Amino acid sequence: MPKSMPLPDELVFLPLGGSGEIGMNFNAYGFGPPNNRQWIIVDCGVLFGREGSSPGVDLIMPDIRFLAEQRENVLGIVATHAHEDHIGAIAHLWPSLRCPVYATPFTARLIMGKLDEAGLTSKLKVREVPVGGKLTLGPFSMDFISITHSILEPNLLAIRTPLGVVAHTGDWKIDPDPMVGEATDTAALEVLGDEGVLALVCDSTNALVPGSSGSEAKVRESLTALIGTLKGRVAVTGFASNVARLDTVARAAKVHGRRVALVGRSMQKMVAAARETGYLKDMPPVLDEAEVADLPAHKVLYLCTGSQGEPRAALARIAAGNHPNVSLSKGDSVIFSSRVIPGNEIAIAEIQNKLAANGIALLTAEDHFVHVSGHPCRDELAQMYRWIRPKLAVPVHGEMRHQVAHAALARELQVPQAIVPQNGQMFRLAPGRPELIDEVPSGRIHMDGRVLVAEGEGLAKDRRAMAFAGLLVVSLVVDNKGRIAAEPVVLGEGMPEAVEEAVLKAVEDTLAKNKRSDPDDLAENVRRAARRAAHDAWGKKPMTRVLVTEL
Amino acid sequence: MPKSMPLPDELVFLPLGGSGEIGMNFNAYGFGPPNNRQWIIVDCGVLFGREGSSPGVDLIMPDIRFLAEQRENVLGIVATHAHEDHIGAIAHLWPSLRCPVYATPFTARLIMGKLDEAGLTSKLKVREVPVGGKLTLGPFSMDFISITHSILEPNLLAIRTPLGVVAHTGDWKIDPDPMVGEATDTAALEVLGDEGVLALVCDSTNALVPGSSGSEAKVRESLTALIGTLKGRVAVTGFASNVARLDTVARAAKVHGRRVALVGRSMQKMVAAARETGYLKDMPPVLDEAEVADLPAHKVLYLCTGSQGEPRAALARIAAGNHPNVSLSKGDSVIFSSRVIPGNEIAIAEIQNKLAANGIALLTAEDHFVHVSGHPCRDELAQMYRWIRPKLAVPVHGEMRHQVAHAALARELQVPQAIVPQNGQMFRLAPGRPELIDEVPSGRIHMDGRVLVAEGEGLAKDRRAMAFAGLLVVSLVVDNKGRIAAEPVVLGEGMPEAVEEAVLKAVEDTLAKNKRSDPDDLAENVRRAARRAAHDAWGKKPMTRVLVTEL
Repeated sequence: MPKSMPLPDELVFLPLGGSGEIGMNFNAYGFGPPNNRQWIIVDCGVLFGREGSSPGVDLIMPDIRFLAEQRENVLGIVATHAHEDHIGAIAHLWPSLRCPVYATPFTARLIMGKLDEAGLTSKLKVREVPVGGKLTLGPFSMDFISITHSILEPNLLAIRTPLGVVAHTGDWKIDPDPMVGEATDTAALEVLGDEGVLALVCDSTNALVPGSSGSEAKVRESLTALIGTLKGRVAVTGFASNVARLDTVARAAKVHGRRVALVGRSMQKMVAAARETGYLKDMPPVLDEAEVADLPAHKVLYLCTGSQGEPRAALARIAAGNHPNVSLSKGDSVIFSSRVIPGNEIAIAEIQNKLAANGIALLTAEDHFVHVSGHPCRDELAQMYRWIRPKLAVPVHGEMRHQVAHAALARELQVPQAIVPQNGQMFRLAPGRPELIDEVPSGRIHMDGRVLVAEGEGLAKDRRAMAFAGLLVVSLVVDNKGRIAAEPVVLGEGMPEAVEEAVLKAVEDTLAKNKRSDPDDLAENVRRAARRAAHDAWGKKPMTRVLVTEL
Repeated sequence: MPKSMPLPDELVFLPLGGSGEIGMNFNAYGFGPPNNRQWIIVDCGVLFGREGSSPGVDLIMPDIRFLAEQRENVLGIVATHAHEDHIGAIAHLWPSLRCPVYATPFTARLIMGKLDEAGLTSKLKVREVPVGGKLTLGPFSMDFISITHSILEPNLLAIRTPLGVVAHTGDWKIDPDPMVGEATDTAALEVLGDEGVLALVCDSTNALVPGSSGSEAKVRESLTALIGTLKGRVAVTGFASNVARLDTVARAAKVHGRRVALVGRSMQKMVAAARETGYLKDMPPVLDEAEVADLPAHKVLYLCTGSQGEPRAALARIAAGNHPNVSLSKGDSVIFSSRVIPGNEIAIAEIQNKLAANGIALLTAEDHFVHVSGHPCRDELAQMYRWIRPKLAVPVHGEMRHQVAHAALARELQVPQAIVPQNGQMFRLAPGRPELIDEVPSGRIHMDGRVLVAEGEGLAKDRRAMAFAGLLVVSLVVDNKGRIAAEPVVLGEGMPEAVEEAVLKAVEDTLAKNKRSDPDDLAENVRRAARRAAHDAWGKKPMTRVLVTEL
């Protein structure tokens, strides 16, 4: 090819988070020749750390250095909806991108709240796209098509480019009656399908679940009836971001003569954001938790945070009996109007056990119809493929088993091709047949305390090793000729005292035998002897460090 | 009361494990006057440690010091059946009790295996009680009544004393067709009920689950049909102790012309124990994993350990592609013929994701009928109460929410009284109305490496704190006048390097300001300054230790 001939334009898809994991959604679309692509980012979310696998890590975010290094080519971040796994990383990663951020009003309001907490509002104002609106960024022209999910204002993005259209679903379900906010704009989806879609990039969460997720309207009927059967105080816990559910509970309370108090900061935050953006106009008034304290038990309903067993949320404190304004006791009831997010089973059970021990009735999705999922089950996925009729299925937002099942379903539905991307894999969507063309650096960044640390640096891994077998520290003092100048000191943190004693003896023996070693060799010999002695005494090999002080 | 008048005999129940937790079953029954009780122990099991809450702890056992201190009064340990949560602590706790141990043959065989591993067989031989047999220990005369569960030889103990009869269920379900071993001896249970029972001490695991647990015979039908639909290699994973299930799988394999290989030590151990005690005589022959390697894929079925995601078990190694003799690939299938034990969701999902990524089909209890629970659901509990008709219900073996629901069910079934015991609570069952009469020391002992450590000593808790925020160590050297004699050394393990640097600076500043302090004050000032500096730099407060070496 002669030098003057420009390379042809391509449309590429690059997930940096959200493939192989539920959370941390981060998808990039690139357009242009390979040496000069322009990018848009769809969603920028977090994953929550787990004590077992990433102890001491609050949030996990994608490693986006590939885009950060060419941030002048990043046209913007577009948020499909306001869940943490879609917007939670914006405030943390934006400083390395410094591009505009776009969202519909409710989502924008919540992102602004996060920017405010991060002290970024002077640098970044989220640009609002109206519900059902359009946005053009360089070669990308996007329609925001209203769908339904478990939060207000979820959007499917119809991303038009000179090389074809991609439908990016974000999170969705088909709820004919979502109670608050728009219903799915099925007409727009059908028109989009008629137009011809290259690829459907789609939520895989419930790809293993047959049937349909069910409607919020049915939950409203069921919860209203259920609350009518209860005596005593009622507490309902669920996801604060499920604004329709909050409305449902408030209305059910009103039907049965109960006043509603919001308990927990995120409940208050979500209701405020919804009201400020024009929703919940008919929701019965909600009170402060202290305002209902003097009402008779059967007049009270608490809407509480903490359905996932979060230790600092309202419900955990109520269950432990140390909430300042809310106390439940024998004869009261707690409704878990939520599902159990995998990994939270034990934390939730601990709270339920405390409540049960105090004679408080538990009503959960296991035994009552009090929740519907916000993600598409198999019948809903099939309906979406019927609407969109893409040439390519790209299952994202799921664990690998969900994505693989989703791809198999798409093939059954006669989608010509399905690919299961992994984070960091760049696929050319057009021109030509979809193809993996590159792998870029990807991975995870930990919010560790207040510091962002690459997972690969191993801090959480080191701490996990300490959680297993403690840390053994030997302190040696040497004089300026490298000779031991004081008794060694041993610290065995997280191990039985007898181990510390055995190690001290082994260190002393090693020092006695190594009087002429150079300090580095000596330290290494001491480290090995100490670790071996710990293993002999305990059966575990602790991480072992030798500190040498030179006089 | 005149001195010469002896105190009256009492029958008491004392759980030291298994109440408020599923696992670690340990129940004691005492008979005699309060100042001279004789004891029997029913079951002596473990709970498995969890990385999040008890990192580095393999096994958790009850604190039995109350009985160990009067071990001359402990007549024996009686095992109801061979699950780890009923026998797993015997080899570890027996040295502090040194009493005889009794069990039916299959259970005895497995306990002996554990004693062998612990080097105890020269000191202790388990005494066999025949299936359906009797055992008398002092004032306790026990009938072993055959019931059904998910293991061979589960027994309900009818414990007769001069003050009345207690029925202790152990773990059970009502399986009319358990496939291997005895069916429930319903005649004996009805006769026992006619005789009059003081208390039913009963399994609560499934007290929240409506209906019945289902029969192994139905699983056999379903699994046989399912395996017939599969091409390629098939691996079935499940609980090795579920001998009937192993037999089911082996027979299903034979029907479809597959040879069965056992993969994983505990599979081999269980089959050997069952055969040595007279079971599985008609089970199709099982091969070694290497023996089937050369057979065509559709002729092979692997029975594997690792259904709970255990990282060192067969399935985890197969999924990771590093099992020496077994490899699965695209077109092969793995059947999870088991339930997910709460807390194992993530570990299991990780294995399933690896398998799915390699194109291996997953079939689980979520989508196919491949498992039944071994514990009684509500209809089965109701049936047991109809048979036994106790005066008192004592729900054990469950989390608090299960025990509370079980007690409520018992009251609905017109049982005159129900108590939910907590570990360490001593209840008088007779004479008179059941009553809480004492609380004795109780708690948990950790098997930490090879060492038994009381949970209260805090080793696992300290390590958990290190997992969250690392360990900061400052090493100071002082001369014989208490003056700083060398540059301080700082080690920040599990924290960003910048934290270590900030701490070093803070330590140097503190030393400069505290030249005249005594060494203890100085160390404490340094500790505080170091911790504060870490918090300022990082947002977390690490555990902080100062080591002082005196010259």
